[in-house]
Amino acid sequence: MKEFVIVAAALLMFLACQPKEAELTTKKEVESIFPSGEKGSDEFFTGNAYALSLVPSDSTLTTLVGNVYFEAGARSHWHTHPAGQILIITDGIGYHQLEGQPRQELKKGDVATCPPNIRHWHGASPYTGMQQLYIIPNNEKGIVEWMEPVTDEQYFR
Amino acid sequence: MKEFVIVAAALLMFLACQPKEAELTTKKEVESIFPSGEKGSDEFFTGNAYALSLVPSDSTLTTLVGNVYFEAGARSHWHTHPAGQILIITDGIGYHQLEGQPRQELKKGDVATCPPNIRHWHGASPYTGMQQLYIIPNNEKGIVEWMEPVTDEQYFR
Repeated sequence: MKEFVIVAAALLMFLACQPKEAELTTKKEVESIFPSGEKGSDEFFTGNAYALSLVPSDSTLTTLVGNVYFEAGARSHWHTHPAGQILIITDGIGYHQLEGQPRQELKKGDVATCPPNIRHWHGASPYTGMQQLYIIPNNEKGIVEWMEPVTDEQYFR
Repeated sequence: MKEFVIVAAALLMFLACQPKEAELTTKKEVESIFPSGEKGSDEFFTGNAYALSLVPSDSTLTTLVGNVYFEAGARSHWHTHPAGQILIITDGIGYHQLEGQPRQELKKGDVATCPPNIRHWHGASPYTGMQQLYIIPNNEKGIVEWMEPVTDEQYFR
């Protein structure tokens, strides 16, 4: 019986000293305003991104609006918008980079813009997801042109 | 002593039958993504509305974006937008009405649109505030034309 108590105590001490798995890998809870939508295609995204259309393109408002939830580590491929884009972060933490400029960190309440025909990418940070609204104006000029994936070197630097 | 107990019991029954003031007047907590911004002018709003500019008008994106927090009971005056408007509700409960159509109830996650040059108003419900993003496209056509206040009869019906 005494041995059992000693073994049990040692086991408890061992378990108490282990790093908590939750601290290492659990993603911070990211609040959602909208349903999560459809998983984005591997042709356009690295990792898990979920897109929901909120306002479809039409000839009156000429403005596409939607929400993307990027899971931690997920990001778009490089792409351009013929009339530019506006991003509004509603929760979480992520990145936006215009080609040739430093990567910008984005968090809840931040707004980022991309001028027409400038290559950019956007996505979540490695350990926290990001909820972002996107606005694409002047759809008569086009919506998006997709390009190559963002490499790990580009994403992590 | 017996009389005291009877009086106390009657008093308790009386109080228990009163409508709870909290139910009638307390505003539900409304979450905010952005700072609350500047109080809107009495020329354009009834009650307390706070507006924050997120993307100013420019000749490239031609799209104005901002956030309005309407306190419970607050609403815009009637107005039109020469190129229309998109509203995205990020929290709370409110209303949107296009002239000649039924008043629409809006809640977190809802999207409403207003076509060009149609008279409309938007605001919070009487007992719960509303957080809304607004998008005004094609600013080269103009932004907004303000008109008369929404009457209590129009608001409460």
